Amino acid sequence: MRREEGTSESEADEREQHTAIAAILAAAIDSEQARDVWRLIDQAKSILLLAHERPDPDALGSALGLAHVLSPLGKECVVACADPVPANYAFLPGHESVVSRLPHQHFDLVIALDAGELGRYGALYTRYQSFFDTATILNLDHHVTSSGCGQVTIIDPASAATAELLTLLLLNREIAINLDAAKCLLAGIITDTRSFEYDATTERTLLAGSYLVGCGAIPEEIIKPYYRVKALAKARLWGIVLDRSLQSAAGGSIVWACVRRDYVREAGATADMDDGLASYLVDIDGVAFSVIFEEQDATTTKISIRTSAPHDAAAIAAAFGGGGHLRAAGAVLPMDIEAAVDRVIARIEASL
Amino acid sequence: MRREEGTSESEADEREQHTAIAAILAAAIDSEQARDVWRLIDQAKSILLLAHERPDPDALGSALGLAHVLSPLGKECVVACADPVPANYAFLPGHESVVSRLPHQHFDLVIALDAGELGRYGALYTRYQSFFDTATILNLDHHVTSSGCGQVTIIDPASAATAELLTLLLLNREIAINLDAAKCLLAGIITDTRSFEYDATTERTLLAGSYLVGCGAIPEEIIKPYYRVKALAKARLWGIVLDRSLQSAAGGSIVWACVRRDYVREAGATADMDDGLASYLVDIDGVAFSVIFEEQDATTTKISIRTSAPHDAAAIAAAFGGGGHLRAAGAVLPMDIEAAVDRVIARIEASL
Repeated sequence: MRREEGTSESEADEREQHTAIAAILAAAIDSEQARDVWRLIDQAKSILLLAHERPDPDALGSALGLAHVLSPLGKECVVACADPVPANYAFLPGHESVVSRLPHQHFDLVIALDAGELGRYGALYTRYQSFFDTATILNLDHHVTSSGCGQVTIIDPASAATAELLTLLLLNREIAINLDAAKCLLAGIITDTRSFEYDATTERTLLAGSYLVGCGAIPEEIIKPYYRVKALAKARLWGIVLDRSLQSAAGGSIVWACVRRDYVREAGATADMDDGLASYLVDIDGVAFSVIFEEQDATTTKISIRTSAPHDAAAIAAAFGGGGHLRAAGAVLPMDIEAAVDRVIARIEASL
Repeated sequence: MRREEGTSESEADEREQHTAIAAILAAAIDSEQARDVWRLIDQAKSILLLAHERPDPDALGSALGLAHVLSPLGKECVVACADPVPANYAFLPGHESVVSRLPHQHFDLVIALDAGELGRYGALYTRYQSFFDTATILNLDHHVTSSGCGQVTIIDPASAATAELLTLLLLNREIAINLDAAKCLLAGIITDTRSFEYDATTERTLLAGSYLVGCGAIPEEIIKPYYRVKALAKARLWGIVLDRSLQSAAGGSIVWACVRRDYVREAGATADMDDGLASYLVDIDGVAFSVIFEEQDATTTKISIRTSAPHDAAAIAAAFGGGGHLRAAGAVLPMDIEAAVDRVIARIEASL
């Protein structure tokens, strides 16, 4: 017996699958909460959608994704963000329409996305504070640390991304998620989970991803530009740093490397191109602590620390006046890079 | 209004979600096909599960995953593979039980997984050919190029991984997927799609991933050891190669680097630690062709070519007696590394 076609489904089966997934996602949110959200949106004709400052693709993807579904419903939508959209976010349809100043128009509703404090919307908030004082605000976010800032607020830490929460809210209302919206929402989910890797990824996160892929969004079109494409100068810089400065101590449980200003110059790079290097080093077999020492000038060195469990990066950073999280922390030290290496590595060795 | 708990679901809701996802996956396979598969398995008491030679986590995860669900059903299962399990596959529960020679026992059924030709099971097949000549074989695979080799064969190219097909077959039979099985099957899906990135990833692929995460499998426990953890020597080797040999031509659309034997020695590395470097280079902004030149000895150079669409890697490799796929190909050239660089780069420049 040989069945060439295997289990390939007919289009009708695929439509049925898609509809069934939508029903599960629609049921995954409290209907009363969803009603509160839609009541506000229904009442509004003109809507300002806000992404927080220094936007990530979840903030912008959530704002743009909502705009893509609300505009065809007759809502006049403006997406705003205090900072410009990074160049490598071109996978977000509509990214070119994001404004950094508010137009002179009335808004019936502000939807504040992916942050629970108005201050996190940066200059957009501080510049237009009197507008926000009287605005009706709907606040949708997933950060457990958020305090909330809306007349209606949903902070859902069970969602790996604000885009996951929005997917539930849209499907609960039985709103068709068009292709542009699906691309924006999938971008939020993929980038907030590093392609479903981080432990915030639940069965429901992947289910939402599944549904959005079924709407036509393509993961590779997000992952490649966001995680893989890099400048030639960045590859050169990493090569120089690893070849000339990679060191280890404590039997390989501490590794570090130095980003010197002349390395950056020689590579034709910019200083921010060491981004990701500390994480790359902590994933070396057997490493407990990794540190990148970045020479800022002759008397200032920035450090980025990463740890594997159970080691505490924040404690080391705090010893040098910095801070951060348990697995990722940093500090700026008032000394040259040689002195910083000596002091920080000695401190980590003492902690082991 | 502030709802701290957001949409967090009760356990009952989560169980309902899990069951509903199982039902969609169960319906996604032709029930007649599934019946043919289960008829063979039902009739067997002792089962040999085969992973193809040079196994990837989908081959081994499929074989081990099936064993994890069939053993509690009273089946005596042996998982075999011609080659040893790579050390970094420890995320596959049961990996230590895989044998590379057949035990002296009778098997009622052979389940050949993730390859459709018996020759692809390597030395296991050639050494025991007379056994296979008379065995009842169930062949489950997803490679479109497979010819099939079983009394019952399902080759399902709609599945991104053999593990996706198995998930459907198990749920169609309403078999509970236990934690060990879920870990094995999720490993197959994640590694065959590079964490849901490759274009084989469909709505159904993510749905299967969702279900397996709901069974308790954790993506990070697969992704970290498989994709991120590396030897210190590998980081050293990449640094040396990038710092000392990275070059570009044709306005940056061709980039290449050389892995010389003395680089490998200096890094304390092994030659295979350049694995992934060609892909790393093709993801540099604006690159059409990347090439890694690996010095094998004074008169032999191996090349690995990667391309971005629409450029043809296989055509370049073929010009030097090699072959491969449209985006990834290779060849072995009977010349020293300098001559190989000159010839190959000239050939690529001529093709642009």
